[in-house]
Amino acid sequence: MQKYFVSPEAFGDQHIRITGADAHHIVNVMRAKPGFTFLVSDGSGREAVAVFESGDGETAIARLEELVAADREAAVEVTIAQSLPKGDKMELIIQKCTELGAAEFLPFLSERTVVQYDAKKEAKRLERWAKIAKEAAEQSHRNRVPDIAASAAWAKLIGQFAAYDLVLICYEDEQGTRLRDVLEPFCEAQRGQEAARILVVIGPEGGFSLREVEAATAAGAVCVSLGRRILRTETAGLAACACIMYQFGEMGGS
Amino acid sequence: MQKYFVSPEAFGDQHIRITGADAHHIVNVMRAKPGFTFLVSDGSGREAVAVFESGDGETAIARLEELVAADREAAVEVTIAQSLPKGDKMELIIQKCTELGAAEFLPFLSERTVVQYDAKKEAKRLERWAKIAKEAAEQSHRNRVPDIAASAAWAKLIGQFAAYDLVLICYEDEQGTRLRDVLEPFCEAQRGQEAARILVVIGPEGGFSLREVEAATAAGAVCVSLGRRILRTETAGLAACACIMYQFGEMGGS
Repeated sequence: MQKYFVSPEAFGDQHIRITGADAHHIVNVMRAKPGFTFLVSDGSGREAVAVFESGDGETAIARLEELVAADREAAVEVTIAQSLPKGDKMELIIQKCTELGAAEFLPFLSERTVVQYDAKKEAKRLERWAKIAKEAAEQSHRNRVPDIAASAAWAKLIGQFAAYDLVLICYEDEQGTRLRDVLEPFCEAQRGQEAARILVVIGPEGGFSLREVEAATAAGAVCVSLGRRILRTETAGLAACACIMYQFGEMGGS
Repeated sequence: MQKYFVSPEAFGDQHIRITGADAHHIVNVMRAKPGFTFLVSDGSGREAVAVFESGDGETAIARLEELVAADREAAVEVTIAQSLPKGDKMELIIQKCTELGAAEFLPFLSERTVVQYDAKKEAKRLERWAKIAKEAAEQSHRNRVPDIAASAAWAKLIGQFAAYDLVLICYEDEQGTRLRDVLEPFCEAQRGQEAARILVVIGPEGGFSLREVEAATAAGAVCVSLGRRILRTETAGLAACACIMYQFGEMGGS
């Protein structure tokens, strides 16, 4: 069943009033006839089955059939801090990690970030990323859309470490500590507690400088290796995200 | 350091003679000067540091400096059987799973495979996929390039199940069995034995039919869920591959 995230104001008592791109999608792309059934969510837990009644492509009106309580959010909150990669790789990272259950994205700039940071394009870029996250969350039937922060400087990112229960920095020169060496005991210790907040920090194509790694570990990050095979920057985040979900029992089961 | 997979015949006693696209890359793209150092591998374990001597873009001659013995292959052999996906998604799957350490790819056709199977294009497609696998293996510094089989019918794929120690079929309607419920005990039981061969079977965009899942389990496959969040077909394989590597201690450490 197709799912749409709508603003909380769209929800009435018995009807829902959808506007904008979603109304266009329902009326013109799905060619909805009265009776066409879909899922709507306000992105913060309220979710319902809706039955299309009428629409003109700018607005779609649907009857709220029943509230559903399917919780598809992970019991662990994974934030991906990604040094801005080249080309459209950030889009792939956002799409795939959203499917895998990531809670939040923090793009940042580090010493070896190659892409030129054009502040004027920031709003446009964020809008595009938010659209990709929304569509991926709809497609994977999530209850919420991950947050995407504006691109921050490295120093600012380090200042946010304290807000997380565990900060992992993936470093290709790390030899000894495997991701699992850190995650397994952390997961054990978290048992029965509130959802753990894990921050995964991924460097740019050229990797982190030693100075950056030292600053991160001084600020509480744990340096981990993702293996003997060198992963591209856009692969590292999604591999780490999948492994964290796996460790927390989130890859499968209901 | 840049790495190139070359044919075993390219290896002489003290020199290596590289031809074709790799010679072009070394001479024209990397603009190698005498002394430029790179890695060469014959794709089956022989690997060396090579120092460029001369070349014209069709041939490049380099001195073999020292043989290296870095083993970057996983101690578990993961094969991804992927129902042919739409567009260029297969390329993403091959690239990312090669980085993550997959040993082999088996594309196949199932009931709900959407793409039209054009036998005439098969050779061209395989050639393109092999190139992507080679480049990803070079980039991630692997010792070998994964094999990619020609697209096979579903019935033929099922006939190959017996060659693997574990066959997992990822099914979105599977509710009870998590990937980890199967992998953890399997990994334990394998300890100290030869490299386990695991086959992961991924359906097309529309998923498997119930009939297909029944046929697969009757042939020995174990049906697993990858979680409450519905993954796109191209995300499922790489998530499963990352999780298997994680379970076998392959995500990190040397």
